[in-house]
Amino acid sequence: MWAELLPVGRSAASGGYRRHAWNAADAECRAWFEEQARARGLAYELDRNGNQWAWLGDPAGDGAIVTGSHLDSVPDGGAYDGPLGVVSSLAAVDELRRRGARLDRPLAVVNFGDEEGARFGVACVGSRLATGLLTPDQAHELRDADGVRLPDAMERAGHDPAAIGADPERLARIGAFVELHVEQGRWLTEDQPVGVASAIWPHGRWRFDFHGEANHAGTTRIDDRRDPMLTFATTVLAARKKARLAGALATFGRVAVEPNGTNAIASLVRGWLDSRAADEATLDAVVEQIRQAADERGERDGVKVELTRESYTPVVDFDGPLRDRLARTLGGVPVLPTGAGHDAGILASAVPTAMLFVRNPSGVSHSPAEHAEEADCLAGVAALADVLEDLACQ
Amino acid sequence: MWAELLPVGRSAASGGYRRHAWNAADAECRAWFEEQARARGLAYELDRNGNQWAWLGDPAGDGAIVTGSHLDSVPDGGAYDGPLGVVSSLAAVDELRRRGARLDRPLAVVNFGDEEGARFGVACVGSRLATGLLTPDQAHELRDADGVRLPDAMERAGHDPAAIGADPERLARIGAFVELHVEQGRWLTEDQPVGVASAIWPHGRWRFDFHGEANHAGTTRIDDRRDPMLTFATTVLAARKKARLAGALATFGRVAVEPNGTNAIASLVRGWLDSRAADEATLDAVVEQIRQAADERGERDGVKVELTRESYTPVVDFDGPLRDRLARTLGGVPVLPTGAGHDAGILASAVPTAMLFVRNPSGVSHSPAEHAEEADCLAGVAALADVLEDLACQ
Repeated sequence: MWAELLPVGRSAASGGYRRHAWNAADAECRAWFEEQARARGLAYELDRNGNQWAWLGDPAGDGAIVTGSHLDSVPDGGAYDGPLGVVSSLAAVDELRRRGARLDRPLAVVNFGDEEGARFGVACVGSRLATGLLTPDQAHELRDADGVRLPDAMERAGHDPAAIGADPERLARIGAFVELHVEQGRWLTEDQPVGVASAIWPHGRWRFDFHGEANHAGTTRIDDRRDPMLTFATTVLAARKKARLAGALATFGRVAVEPNGTNAIASLVRGWLDSRAADEATLDAVVEQIRQAADERGERDGVKVELTRESYTPVVDFDGPLRDRLARTLGGVPVLPTGAGHDAGILASAVPTAMLFVRNPSGVSHSPAEHAEEADCLAGVAALADVLEDLACQ
Repeated sequence: MWAELLPVGRSAASGGYRRHAWNAADAECRAWFEEQARARGLAYELDRNGNQWAWLGDPAGDGAIVTGSHLDSVPDGGAYDGPLGVVSSLAAVDELRRRGARLDRPLAVVNFGDEEGARFGVACVGSRLATGLLTPDQAHELRDADGVRLPDAMERAGHDPAAIGADPERLARIGAFVELHVEQGRWLTEDQPVGVASAIWPHGRWRFDFHGEANHAGTTRIDDRRDPMLTFATTVLAARKKARLAGALATFGRVAVEPNGTNAIASLVRGWLDSRAADEATLDAVVEQIRQAADERGERDGVKVELTRESYTPVVDFDGPLRDRLARTLGGVPVLPTGAGHDAGILASAVPTAMLFVRNPSGVSHSPAEHAEEADCLAGVAALADVLEDLACQ
């Protein structure tokens, strides 16, 4: 199962994955999911928002137990972020059948569309649409880097963009959602292959626009310059420092420069800040401190700093009783928070939701070097099967 | 004449020019030059290296006086850098005719191809090829950002790439070359509309590759990160500081980030350094100090720094007797150095060469805000006509 999915959308140059919403690699992944569902005799469904479902038991039944994740990737992402959850869910269905488990509720495996937001800039589009956290109007405004609108990309991929929108009936039939995911840090230690999530840190994306003045790099006197690259550089260093002091995270990983010529002082540097912290007050304080550092340096450089909050996700505390039940079922596994957004974080607004993490020895994620040991992956499948059996057989 | 040229290759969005070697806007500029030559009854010639010539007198005669500049631009460049020299040269021809000047030598106006190097990364391709400073083999290896090879771009624009290469016979027939150019700083003061160049500062381009490790921006602990954006930021600030202390210039205006995702720590940041100084020892020392600062911070960040010198142009001292003659003809105008490279700097290796600068009130260059007052431009034409008359009538 894993071997078939591995080559899809992988760049020969970087070894990383480029499975972005509604592109060709994404379509191949989706075809693979449908095939896997049908090969198992699971009832296959594509919902109005582009999420795929594979049902064991009645799709119209109540109190369904749902598990799954996503198959798309960040640019040059790794093989595990997303796909491990989908593959483990299908493997857990196989394991439940092997055990001869008799389910009292419907069970579904889901592949949520466009989780990473790599193409259109908004994460978890499939689950946000279903829960109504993203409206069809908002979704219709999204564009990719080439200016292609999301509805046009959907249409080209054979999906009807007019049908997207909140899907409360479907969510109301779900009794619990459990997402298994490769860990994206190194919080699980040597004797802990699997953990349960307590919460998702609040997090957001802020765009800093540093407006300077384009000029000739070889002739403009230093005192005549308004060079936004200097303000940007100071802001990058301030972000690291403020985050470290607050026990938070703050990262500039994306930059766009105009005109971006070797012998031209930039007129505009855009830098995107990703920041996360254990609580919203800390997060807001860190971003405010970074903004202040940017403004102060901007004044020295003659550079105007504009700050735009592009997205903000409040803290998500996963369902307490469900979390405790998972921890009990799995017998003393660690319970830990995460800084990453997930479909589970979106679903949690509508459905009792929990997450399982599988250990990542290097902590590397969103990179071709992302990895989980086979033994840990198998431990993840076994844990997921235990949890699903406990939830669905009652 | 100026009004016709103004709209060519201008971006409606930025107001800047995108006249890059062998693109459609470049072709329009070249057609305009040929038209201007023919309209004046000047003998039009396109040389093997894509440089255009308009001759008053015998193109095969010896000791020719040549003036001119270039029509291409940096990305989103201004209207004056290059075109002012070409337009002023044609206007000076008109002025000499108006004066009824009787020339003892052939006079030519030249439009050098691909001066800015905006598309293929090497500046002054037309003049470098003619002087042999760039070999045909080297030129054939150049590629633009889309991977298009220079010879293919030439061919598509109707120019034979097999013919390019050193053109010593043509250069041997030139007695002197004078390039008029808009000033690119603010060294000419209130009562000085025109100046004469003494030298071009040595300058070069260095590419810094900062190799870190891609990872998830939301989950990777700070101590587990190898974030090259931090090393880059430190290097940007060090460049400004070291340059200021040495009285030199050092600028990062171009950046490329991989994978350049908002929620991914970068695996690679590339930054291009443009640096210039009054002498080579100072320039080399400044770049070495910047490299040291990058290495030191890179060690802290777990980031490997690779430095590649992409180009280096030694100091160019313009021909002393010619420079003095211009200054004498123009009666006490200032003589000043420049930090910018020019075709004149390339020609100086083969031909007695000089430059005239026209005042730029804001000093802004390589930007849509680049400007020269009309009165100063007319003073430039008059000065150029005086100089050409002095040189060609003897």
